[in-house]
Parts: sequence; structure tokens; C-alpha cells
Amino acid sequence: MRAIIQRVTKATVTVGEEEISSIGRGLCVLLGVSVEDTQKDADYIVRKILNLRLFEDEGGRAWTKSVVDRDFEVLCVSQFTLQCVLKANKPDFHLAMPAELAQPFYNSILENMRSSYKPELIKDGRFGAYMQVHIQNDGPVTIDLTSPTGPSDPKQLSKQEKQQQRKEKTRSKGPSESSREKGAARSKRDPNASSGADGDVSSDREP
Amino acid sequence: MRAIIQRVTKATVTVGEEEISSIGRGLCVLLGVSVEDTQKDADYIVRKILNLRLFEDEGGRAWTKSVVDRDFEVLCVSQFTLQCVLKANKPDFHLAMPAELAQPFYNSILENMRSSYKPELIKDGRFGAYMQVHIQNDGPVTIDLTSPTGPSDPKQLSKQEKQQQRKEKTRSKGPSESSREKGAARSKRDPNASSGADGDVSSDREP
Repeated sequence: MRAIIQRVTKATVTVGEEEISSIGRGLCVLLGVSVEDTQKDADYIVRKILNLRLFEDEGGRAWTKSVVDRDFEVLCVSQFTLQCVLKANKPDFHLAMPAELAQPFYNSILENMRSSYKPELIKDGRFGAYMQVHIQNDGPVTIDLTSPTGPSDPKQLSKQEKQQQRKEKTRSKGPSESSREKGAARSKRDPNASSGADGDVSSDREP
Repeated sequence: MRAIIQRVTKATVTVGEEEISSIGRGLCVLLGVSVEDTQKDADYIVRKILNLRLFEDEGGRAWTKSVVDRDFEVLCVSQFTLQCVLKANKPDFHLAMPAELAQPFYNSILENMRSSYKPELIKDGRFGAYMQVHIQNDGPVTIDLTSPTGPSDPKQLSKQEKQQQRKEKTRSKGPSESSREKGAARSKRDPNASSGADGDVSSDREP
């Protein structure tokens, strides 16, 4: 699981002309869930988002207070493109957890965050929708977080990818068929939507 | 070197009340240079920023065109916090290249980008200043890029860090003394500025 955490003065999400979400000071989190992620990754990411010391204290001393300490808000938006593997200059997203699995998992992460803090201070985008995320990055301050068991760099991704492919070749059926079944389960959605992975965003279908 | 690349409808940078930079459609890049980075890392990142296929073509086919193909703009902002090592919930930035070295290096990366594309389409923040970066993330689409030789995950960072410390202990003088001299060379700047690493942003001084 990868999270891009931006410290913000404010952030909003619009879908078309409609503003669907808005926060003041706090964190805007773009969250990318991979096919390999488990509850352990989710718990780690939630804990870090809420406890990272990215804010100053009342005396202006930097890097001393968390979003929880300051009673600030969190806007979390699903972002499968963070699970990108590059084939030369072509992004490939087959390591992203497919939307039909990612959506309930992502919702459980939000619930976890709400129950660990104040529910009314945790905001969301709209899963799978084509959004404009307006981020006023304050500083700027941006932290790139990877859960301990998640993939981390292009080389590791390549290795993981190969392992994954080997696994898929050798087994007939198993509990994590998600990536094999992904093609079949894909729904037709806005080709620009990139909040949840689906067929339209894979570059596999290209020549 | 790490780059967080956000596809944008528009993006601007303000310092105080002044808007110092602005782009329309294109990419907003937050760039974090580490003490280990070389020209090779810089070349890789510039090539990827300009050539990654993050845009649709005229027919609306996603992930087919680069920022160069579409004649779009790039706003690049230095962001040392991407070279963060977590000590529990406390960010530590000593792996970030110190400002006095990072600034000329960062400027050379921008020049490289300008000479590889159209100079007037590459915009910048203000190195070391406390900025508000207004990012209208389109999709959202965010790519997290690490140069091949750069550090990539917290565990690797810890290893690198240890190696770095061993190196520093065993050598008396050498060409890359930057991280040792960092403390001495630090300048007093805005404690909220996080575009270039300096003493005010290190959390080492805390109890």
C-alpha cells in the first residue's frame, strides 16, 4: 500500500460542477492499494497518517504535532495509479487491487481511520469517479509512505510481478485470484477515472 | 531521487500574497533529491517526467500521450521531505541533500528539462521558500517515481543510512562530505520552508 500524504491549508474534491468534499488544515492522502495488501498494511498506513508529526506546535516548533494532536482534518482519495509499474514510458496498473475488491477494502480503511480519530474529521472522495482534487499543499510538505510489506521500487515490482506470474501459472485455484479474474470482472467506466482500477485504465489492451 | 508526479488541470505557486508561478494542463512535480543522487538519477527522472504517457490522445484513449506529445506544461517544485526517514512517527530528513548542494543540482535538473523540451513550458517554485502549491489533480492521477539508484523503502533507507554512517566514521576526508558538513553549513530560514533542506527542518535537535 502506498500513500502520498500532502500537508494542506485546504483541499476539496469536485465531480463535474459539484463539490463533494472539503477540508481545511490537515492532510490530503492519495491511497493506492495493491493486490498483495492485507489488513496489516491498512493498519500501518492508518496509524502513520494519524500520528506522523507533520505540523508545528503552538510555539511554531516544526515537526512536533500530528493531525490528531492539532485536531485537523484528513481528506482521503483512492488512487490506484500509485501501484504503477512502468514498461518503458507506458504505465501498467495490473498490480493495483481491482476495483471490486479495492472498494470494500478502501472503505474499511476509512472506517478504521474514523474510529481511530473523530469520524467527522475524515473526508472521502468518490471511489471510481473522475474527480478534480484541489490540493493546497502547505510548505510544500509531502511524504511518500509505503507499508512494510508492500512493493516499493520498480526493480522490486518487477520481481514481485514475476513471482506473481509464476504463482498464477502453477496454481489452478486459490484464494487470491483477484488479478487473474480482473479482466473478466472489469466494468465499463469513465476512462479518465483513476480512483479505482478497472479495464479502461489498463494499458494492456494497447498494441 | 524521488518525484511525485501529479497530472493537473492547473497548478500555481504562491509565496505570501504573490503568485510566483502558474501552469495550465500538464504535470506538477514535487522533487526530492537525496545525498546519494548523481547526474544519472537526474537524467532518469527528467526523461521519465517528459515521456511518461499520462495523457489521453485526441480520440480520448487513455495513457497514450506524454506531456511533450500534448505540448502541456510542467511545474517543478523542490521537496526535500520526500527524502524522509521515519523514526516511529518523527520525520527525519538527514538523507535529503543539504540545500547548498541541492540548489545548484536542482537548478541543473530544471535546465536539463528545459533544454530537452520547450524552456517556456517548464515552470519552477522558489527554492527554500515557504510556499503554497495549489494543485488541481486531474483524475486524480499520481505517479510515485524513484530513480533506479535511489533509496526506495523505509527498510532500505535504514540500511543505506547505516552504510552512510559507517562510511562517515571510517573516512577522514572525501568528496561527499555534504552530510557531515550539513550541520555547520545550515542557514537560518523560515522554519516552515521545505523546498530545500536545512537545519530548521531537521528533527535531530529534538529531545
